[in-house]
Amino acid sequence: MTPSAALEALRAQVPLVHCITNYVAMNIAANVTLAAGASPAMIHAPEEVANFVPIAGALTINIGTLSAAWLDGMKTAAIAANSSNVPWVLDPVAHFVTPYRRKAAQELLNLKPTILRGNASEIIELAGAAGSGKGADSGDRVNDAHNSAQALAARYGCVVAVSGSVDFITDGSNSASIIGGSDIMPTVTALGCSLTALVGAYAAVAPRLDATVAAFVHFAEAGERAATDAIGPGTFAAAFLDKLYALEPENLEETRVSWF
Amino acid sequence: MTPSAALEALRAQVPLVHCITNYVAMNIAANVTLAAGASPAMIHAPEEVANFVPIAGALTINIGTLSAAWLDGMKTAAIAANSSNVPWVLDPVAHFVTPYRRKAAQELLNLKPTILRGNASEIIELAGAAGSGKGADSGDRVNDAHNSAQALAARYGCVVAVSGSVDFITDGSNSASIIGGSDIMPTVTALGCSLTALVGAYAAVAPRLDATVAAFVHFAEAGERAATDAIGPGTFAAAFLDKLYALEPENLEETRVSWF
Amino acid sequence: MTPSAALEALRAQVPLVHCITNYVAMNIAANVTLAAGASPAMIHAPEEVANFVPIAGALTINIGTLSAAWLDGMKTAAIAANSSNVPWVLDPVAHFVTPYRRKAAQELLNLKPTILRGNASEIIELAGAAGSGKGADSGDRVNDAHNSAQALAARYGCVVAVSGSVDFITDGSNSASIIGGSDIMPTVTALGCSLTALVGAYAAVAPRLDATVAAFVHFAEAGERAATDAIGPGTFAAAFLDKLYALEPENLEETRVSWF
Repeated sequence: MTPSAALEALRAQVPLVHCITNYVAMNIAANVTLAAGASPAMIHAPEEVANFVPIAGALTINIGTLSAAWLDGMKTAAIAANSSNVPWVLDPVAHFVTPYRRKAAQELLNLKPTILRGNASEIIELAGAAGSGKGADSGDRVNDAHNSAQALAARYGCVVAVSGSVDFITDGSNSASIIGGSDIMPTVTALGCSLTALVGAYAAVAPRLDATVAAFVHFAEAGERAATDAIGPGTFAAAFLDKLYALEPENLEETRVSWF
Repeated sequence: MTPSAALEALRAQVPLVHCITNYVAMNIAANVTLAAGASPAMIHAPEEVANFVPIAGALTINIGTLSAAWLDGMKTAAIAANSSNVPWVLDPVAHFVTPYRRKAAQELLNLKPTILRGNASEIIELAGAAGSGKGADSGDRVNDAHNSAQALAARYGCVVAVSGSVDFITDGSNSASIIGGSDIMPTVTALGCSLTALVGAYAAVAPRLDATVAAFVHFAEAGERAATDAIGPGTFAAAFLDKLYALEPENLEETRVSWF
Repeated sequence: MTPSAALEALRAQVPLVHCITNYVAMNIAANVTLAAGASPAMIHAPEEVANFVPIAGALTINIGTLSAAWLDGMKTAAIAANSSNVPWVLDPVAHFVTPYRRKAAQELLNLKPTILRGNASEIIELAGAAGSGKGADSGDRVNDAHNSAQALAARYGCVVAVSGSVDFITDGSNSASIIGGSDIMPTVTALGCSLTALVGAYAAVAPRLDATVAAFVHFAEAGERAATDAIGPGTFAAAFLDKLYALEPENLEETRVSWF
């Protein structure tokens, strides 16, 4: 399914996307998902996630501001997603910065997400190699994460997506690079987390590899267009939502994607 | 009290509004309340809410990102509001999506809020009828919620307000419709939650029915004006805060309100 | 170190700033810190803060939306900062509104923050005098807080910074006033909390008194410039991030600072 067809499906179906994300990303991730055309729902309590997951078109889990109660909700939700065949996306934010976080990310990965999205440092470290990330920002380049992404895709049977100036997406067999976006994007907080939510939205309406590519293309296209209107990170964030909303299926250029 | 007089009172008194809201709405609800002219305070811990409620002019409770500890704080705060005669507003976000949430909303409703605000699906389902909502977005039209709203107003002795393209507000005896706003508003997350906070702000300075109408008129007026400046949801959100702030008492047109 | 030299160091080192802040401020504080040139990380769980603090260049603690689990994380982080010589900043938001919050602020203050930042009411009340604040907004003027700030600086051996239309910063011996900013800033929520995060960023690259002054000058300069572009609080917030990002070391005018 092409990115254009995927966006058409998204707009037609307005899928419900169950997002368990961090406090920094809550608002912007909901706004990104909503502007793109889906219906986000932020629900995290262990008492209710298993009831909500089967109603949703997809689930996304992001460990940015982790705590014990939330991890409990995340695992419960992931297990529910697996048993009800709801696709789910894992975003292992800065998983390598503490032993607690590293363990949590591994436990979630062991539950076999449909799609794994991170920056280069996160993917490299998750594959067991040594990266140079610090905090939530990547210290590595996407190019250096290709092998790690392919290894993780094979090991866990998932799609792996690496965000950066040129994105890389693979299911272990087929891989794609996406160009676009803007250098200003890393200066706006939680855009990567918001992309994870958008990948979830597309995964509700398209096959997992195509869905991931479509979300990245929608994001890259909106980012590139927003940068032309923006003065800095503040005006960029507003323009970015405007562009995500305004983009039509025919605007998602396949020339942004190189398959190999 | 007219909407104009209520806004005049709001700006003169700058009431302290105690908001217990969800993580998505935290920032925008505070900004909406602040831009309109009140002083919001986000405080949720069971250890302190009962001490803070009596200082506040009003309390608002929104169950968007519910959890056990927060529900405990919400109930404690509602009970404190009742015993100190502080008006309080309940926003039962997506209460029908899980049994856990349904029970929580009912428990809070049993504590008799001064004002209940929701979208059409939330109000219809709360009255015991079958709605067609999914997640936090309404699948029903406000017109179809009039009877449910009146039934709930009578049953719980509260004002009930239903948000939509034409809003409906009733205390069971007197009812009003409000026109205004913009189609773009549902594409910005947590605006309904922010309206709940604004209803709280007005409830601190005006009788409950007039307060609710005034908050909705202020919101509708700002929304309509912001839409003329906005390109999409991102620029709308910024323009909306600007308009809420810039509106003067004489701008709150009574022609937006139809009483019946 | 001058504000210009401090900004130059900030941009060169891109320090990792560990922020434990409130739900309202999470996004804007991260965006402010990122736009200024640092790398924020929001991590609060007691299970991991002590592992993360030693990696960070500074820690900031803000009690805006306090709860028991978070207070536990805050204390653990502060103790870790002290034992690993990481500078830390305390923001005792509205500490005087409930006994629970007052006790929490005192416990954190007893752990001896490197820098204490608050509004006039918060500083006056913390020094044991009677202020007239309500909620998170100051009811007092910065001028009336000079003595309280100096007393606290002497008592706890920290830098004390008081935000207002003219800011005041002291280490008990040397004091500075900072002019700039805009009257519109108090109408945007969590800007004070965001300034606390920015003080942390500068404290990672400059001596504590100079760092605090530099953060306030950067903030005041950006605020003054953003106000000329803004229509109201919504457009101000976006413009403010743009200006924080665009400002270069030579733009941080020392004429904003009066030492005495």
